[in-house]
Amino acid sequence: MVKVVRADELKALLVKIYESLGVSRDHAEVVADSLVNSNLRCVDSHGVSRGLDFINGIKVGEINPRPNIKVLRESESSVLVDGDRGIGIPVAYEVTLKVIEKAKKSGVGVGAARNLWNVGALAYYVMRIAREGLIGISLANAKARIGLPGVKSPLVGTNPIAVAIPTGDGPIVLDMALSTVAAGKIVLAARKGEKIPEGWAITKDGKPTTDPKEALEGYLTPMGGYKGLGLAIVVDILSSAFIGAPYSLIISGKGPYTQGGFLVIALNPNMFREFEEFVRDVRNYVETLKSLPRDPGVEVLMPGEPEARCFDERSVKGIPIDDGVWEQLAKVANELGVPL
Amino acid sequence: MVKVVRADELKALLVKIYESLGVSRDHAEVVADSLVNSNLRCVDSHGVSRGLDFINGIKVGEINPRPNIKVLRESESSVLVDGDRGIGIPVAYEVTLKVIEKAKKSGVGVGAARNLWNVGALAYYVMRIAREGLIGISLANAKARIGLPGVKSPLVGTNPIAVAIPTGDGPIVLDMALSTVAAGKIVLAARKGEKIPEGWAITKDGKPTTDPKEALEGYLTPMGGYKGLGLAIVVDILSSAFIGAPYSLIISGKGPYTQGGFLVIALNPNMFREFEEFVRDVRNYVETLKSLPRDPGVEVLMPGEPEARCFDERSVKGIPIDDGVWEQLAKVANELGVPL
Repeated sequence: MVKVVRADELKALLVKIYESLGVSRDHAEVVADSLVNSNLRCVDSHGVSRGLDFINGIKVGEINPRPNIKVLRESESSVLVDGDRGIGIPVAYEVTLKVIEKAKKSGVGVGAARNLWNVGALAYYVMRIAREGLIGISLANAKARIGLPGVKSPLVGTNPIAVAIPTGDGPIVLDMALSTVAAGKIVLAARKGEKIPEGWAITKDGKPTTDPKEALEGYLTPMGGYKGLGLAIVVDILSSAFIGAPYSLIISGKGPYTQGGFLVIALNPNMFREFEEFVRDVRNYVETLKSLPRDPGVEVLMPGEPEARCFDERSVKGIPIDDGVWEQLAKVANELGVPL
Repeated sequence: MVKVVRADELKALLVKIYESLGVSRDHAEVVADSLVNSNLRCVDSHGVSRGLDFINGIKVGEINPRPNIKVLRESESSVLVDGDRGIGIPVAYEVTLKVIEKAKKSGVGVGAARNLWNVGALAYYVMRIAREGLIGISLANAKARIGLPGVKSPLVGTNPIAVAIPTGDGPIVLDMALSTVAAGKIVLAARKGEKIPEGWAITKDGKPTTDPKEALEGYLTPMGGYKGLGLAIVVDILSSAFIGAPYSLIISGKGPYTQGGFLVIALNPNMFREFEEFVRDVRNYVETLKSLPRDPGVEVLMPGEPEARCFDERSVKGIPIDDGVWEQLAKVANELGVPL
């Protein structure tokens, strides 16, 4: 069962809940905006349900509701901040605003954050960058969940990569984890009692499996085999050793809101060309790919286009929230004296 | 049949051949170094055989043997050059040296080149960057060869991504094309009369196929399905609209030495941490992953490690060159009066 809620109402409710847990108004608004934005884009794994995780994290004392975000190093083109164990979203957002400023002034900004909890969907930051007419690139690492046949341990996290490219209209947005499939798909198969396809997962002893239960006790496979594993290793190092954050295998914390490090880059297209030339060519590119000869009913979609369509639809029709998630939210609101 | 040649001899021969075709000594040396380096690393697709393509390209007048490489835009952290239709390797190498300088001074360098032919293996540039204690990232686009089921045209090239991370010892080097497998594997299957596995390729009408002949007339699949396609699209735009170079579908030129644009980024680890802290953590990372519990005989290799082992072996034992390739090389040398 599902409850449908309007985005602005959901956002207002989340802001009130976070504020009453001690989160500053500014931070609460950014957290709520990121979560609801994920729901609007049909990325429900990074939406309100993750918001509940943050609430639990604050309650058990792992997450610092009122972090003192400190700049550790800064130059004209780079900035590193310490997130003071806060929710990752406002920390990463602050870094994002700083790299936007740097890229506008000097062409490029490279920003990073450590000592923070989960940053939510990376799409949020790169889309914020693209809104300024800049190219956004972001990486982060997560707890180790990807394995390799023959190895009796996970090696790396699903370590996502995101890129947003402005088009003058809605941006092209790639935001992808580096596993073959999301763990959520295996959870779903387990619930339905179905087998999973070969190649999705391996057991905790490093053996291939099609049993979703064994898969959930084991590890995910990297997208594209060794190539994806190589990419996940590189993302892991750029999110850890590069910025002084933990790598996937040593990320601590028990909650589902853990994070290693966060890296974000903003590139100003005017470093190479006039902005108008750039967006003209990007639009022309999209149009060319969409006009290729194809079978009836087949459509070429740019990265982020399905999510943009969902955004438009859910902005009008509201966001469907699982009853279980809604009940937990109502319970928390009730405990904190926040009216629904 | 195979001839085994010492790396320094092969390099000297290539330098003489290119010089007698009008290429400057400096450029000839960089081209030969990149090609032989690829052979030493067992990446024979980007070695001497590609060197033969350049020779043909110069002969038919497509490749300009003595390009006037011009800086079109430059700032403290960025540079764009026009390659004047030269072999891509010396053009990309010059951009690489410039981003190294910029990253040393200001933390980050972003460089690009357009109007150039093939740049060879991207590993060459990012490894050059890593030798300076910097992190190297490089992208490029190639003629469209990757397709999508239901689309009767290729969409994007195999658009490679490369990253090199210094360790204080040999670097970690990822250099990968974004197709499921290299076209070379399908050529091999065709030669042996074997079928190819499902998921490697589609026909020119956008239908899945296991017939290597149909596959070679058709398109490759992207690694990891839609994720890899999204990545290839993003790399295509960053290598074209961003820098004013052609995108995969409109890359012109008939030879196998075509190229779209070339992008390279150097990041100075000292923007966030002391270099010693950084390499200590990278080494610790590698050691941790290599020490994970595993089945007997299983080894965890870092990206670039198989190639580094091959480099060590071929540096001692010499480089095996296919008789066909060697014959063409000997023929060219003979025509040009270059002693073998």
